Amino acid sequence: MAEYDYDLFVIGGGSGGVRAGRVAASLGRKVAIAEEYRYGGTCVIRGCVPKKLFVYASQFPEHFEDAAGYGWTVPDVSFDWPTLIANKDAEIARLEGLYRKGLDNAGAEILDCRAELVDRHTVRLVGLDRTVTAQTILIATGGRPNPHAALPGHELCISSNGAFHLETLPRSIVIAGGGYIAVEFANIFHGLGVETTLVYRGKEILGRFDMDLRRSLHETMEKKGIRILCHTIFEKIGKRDDGRVDAHLSNGEVLAVDQVMLALGRLPNTEGLGLEAAGVETGKRGEIVVDKFSRTSADNIYAIGDVTDRVQLTPVAIHEAMCFVETVFRDNPTAPDLDDVATAVFSQPEIGTVGLSEDDAAGRFDEIEVYRASFRPMRHTLSGRDEKMLMKLVVDASSGRVVGAHILGPDAGEMAQILGIAVKARLTKADFDRTMAVHPSAAEELVTMYQPTYRVRNGERLD
Amino acid sequence: MAEYDYDLFVIGGGSGGVRAGRVAASLGRKVAIAEEYRYGGTCVIRGCVPKKLFVYASQFPEHFEDAAGYGWTVPDVSFDWPTLIANKDAEIARLEGLYRKGLDNAGAEILDCRAELVDRHTVRLVGLDRTVTAQTILIATGGRPNPHAALPGHELCISSNGAFHLETLPRSIVIAGGGYIAVEFANIFHGLGVETTLVYRGKEILGRFDMDLRRSLHETMEKKGIRILCHTIFEKIGKRDDGRVDAHLSNGEVLAVDQVMLALGRLPNTEGLGLEAAGVETGKRGEIVVDKFSRTSADNIYAIGDVTDRVQLTPVAIHEAMCFVETVFRDNPTAPDLDDVATAVFSQPEIGTVGLSEDDAAGRFDEIEVYRASFRPMRHTLSGRDEKMLMKLVVDASSGRVVGAHILGPDAGEMAQILGIAVKARLTKADFDRTMAVHPSAAEELVTMYQPTYRVRNGERLD
Repeated sequence: MAEYDYDLFVIGGGSGGVRAGRVAASLGRKVAIAEEYRYGGTCVIRGCVPKKLFVYASQFPEHFEDAAGYGWTVPDVSFDWPTLIANKDAEIARLEGLYRKGLDNAGAEILDCRAELVDRHTVRLVGLDRTVTAQTILIATGGRPNPHAALPGHELCISSNGAFHLETLPRSIVIAGGGYIAVEFANIFHGLGVETTLVYRGKEILGRFDMDLRRSLHETMEKKGIRILCHTIFEKIGKRDDGRVDAHLSNGEVLAVDQVMLALGRLPNTEGLGLEAAGVETGKRGEIVVDKFSRTSADNIYAIGDVTDRVQLTPVAIHEAMCFVETVFRDNPTAPDLDDVATAVFSQPEIGTVGLSEDDAAGRFDEIEVYRASFRPMRHTLSGRDEKMLMKLVVDASSGRVVGAHILGPDAGEMAQILGIAVKARLTKADFDRTMAVHPSAAEELVTMYQPTYRVRNGERLD
Repeated sequence: MAEYDYDLFVIGGGSGGVRAGRVAASLGRKVAIAEEYRYGGTCVIRGCVPKKLFVYASQFPEHFEDAAGYGWTVPDVSFDWPTLIANKDAEIARLEGLYRKGLDNAGAEILDCRAELVDRHTVRLVGLDRTVTAQTILIATGGRPNPHAALPGHELCISSNGAFHLETLPRSIVIAGGGYIAVEFANIFHGLGVETTLVYRGKEILGRFDMDLRRSLHETMEKKGIRILCHTIFEKIGKRDDGRVDAHLSNGEVLAVDQVMLALGRLPNTEGLGLEAAGVETGKRGEIVVDKFSRTSADNIYAIGDVTDRVQLTPVAIHEAMCFVETVFRDNPTAPDLDDVATAVFSQPEIGTVGLSEDDAAGRFDEIEVYRASFRPMRHTLSGRDEKMLMKLVVDASSGRVVGAHILGPDAGEMAQILGIAVKARLTKADFDRTMAVHPSAAEELVTMYQPTYRVRNGERLD
């Protein structure tokens, strides 16, 4: 008789937890997984997937406008928010079904309940009135939007979670935050015709990205009609008699809007999990502290994904899940490799990026070469849309290695994915130069920038 | 006093000739260039550029249809062909101006006339009533559509040249050919609402491409409503009393259509150039024969681009131009590198490809692994469009090298450009696997195909 009910108990049915549970079960391990809300987690249920569907929805007005230069006359269109929500919800339900089916087919036991640790090997199934035991426990409970409880009136605001389920589309919205979630939603709402303001305390949106992209995106968003206020925060939110709300800003302005959205970072879901009872330590931001193999301070308990606050991205959680399975169930200790992670911001225009920003590279290498192209995408020659595409390669001058690649413009995310292969493989600028162009494309700029636009030596720009 | 009027005389103002002339002039050489039609050549004037603008124009109806699933109601739209033609022509004129300006700024002399060789160093400027001499002569006269003079009634047909200047959009068209020009125009006309038939003598469209892509594109085009007849040719074309034409096919059918377009390959422009007088040899198809440095049988005369019929692509002509300048004017003999040239077909959906097809790879390596993913792009989950994206990696099993990468679907050309860097640099499947996914994207499939779909050993498929 086995010592424990399960070989593996997974708490949290998001991308990381489901992957780990499914693969461990398919290896013949006895696995159970518990999820208190919906299988699929942030990514599928209220993150990447519905967000990208909203992005598609919000891009149609530009298609309609762009058509004129190509000879098309499009009469006045109309938009129905409930249709979008219903169709999005149906797709999310379909994906959730696929997640459950994957677990089921692999032989994992699926529990629809909250799970809390009682001790290092015991889990209480809340609402089911029972406890179970497991040899190994994996915590993959993810994160949630920071509610910013210190803000007077924060209860009048929505987060990204709420944005996916608004009953009506607001006529006006103000969004607090400068990260990718704030920026993506500002573009979504603006694209759908909502009067949109973005309020951010920092000096420029999108903190960790290359400054060139940040500035160019900022300018383009303003040109579209999105109002962006940097160096500004909310002081309080108040209810108005007309049903709307007043957002009082630190610059003295009061914005009367239909909705206020807070996108001020995310918190790891660690409260009430019984971490203390199980001897699992957490860090300053509440995140679970793990070693390089995703092991917590309790040696049979592991944690992956957003709850560990390493890199908060779906593919990273999945990669951590695969490494966890490799380490624990295949006797092959494997640490996640989080270098040169390519990412996209589904702003409009889109950002795709991998590797070091110019500033980071300038700090790390004695001399870098920057190759930079800014041009109008061919589609916009006839559409007349005044929007530029930006492409930038950052090269370590001594080795010739391309250490950063940054794109702002259509399909930047798709391009960044494949540039990720090249940057991860430590290819050089010469490897790029050797590649024949594909014409006419936007990406051909990446292989036809023969001379550096400028160099940065010891942190100083040389023209 | 110099022995010759010019260091370099370039015949032909297309992509290759203009690049060579401009760069040689910028190195301080005395350069003249002659073009009898319009600067920019096939690519700018009646090829890649206007073609891609037509592709954009023809994609709007699908945008309008796709919008419904996202909550948009688009009333009946209308299309005006003369507006598209006028806007396209304005853009082409702008680009032609840029080509001329580039030459002018570099100090090249721009001649608007036909030029013919009198002897190895002498060129007659037709219509200007004078001859000039040059140390080195570069022939870059390009190609033109094959008029298929053997076809009775061929004079009633248009070529791609004519398609760019039709006065009215036909209601119906039949296109002969199975190459990328025929396929691209079939999609363009269909997208613009023209009843379109494609007639091709071979067994499947797009000869040199991966068979999987060819079949999938064929199916998708038929599903859209394009009629495709393989194993069929035109027997004759006849004028009808109603102003339309009858296309008599080898299968016995007679199609009554507004227009017939021939896209049956291209011929090198070598007639009447004085090649014999200058001692320049041509090959079987009329192309100029060159050595690996683009030198003809006359040792001061070089030829690049489509007139040499190596790889008929704009970036190849430009690359050959750069190698020519390097060889002749920088004393650094450089042969064009035409391995692993990535290309796109701007069909709908698009094709992007680099390296070996599955069949070619199976013939070249003892064992290959094929990684294949076919899926609905996320955009079409809500649009409801029944169109799949196909991605395929072909890997040499013994080295692990990715020897071919093939994509059918949105943005395939952009992806192929960057995959070209990876394939050219001889990266392995392990390099792809090491790369973190960008989610949600289509390209993430390229880095998450962990197990081969099948293998081919000694030419035989193993499942």
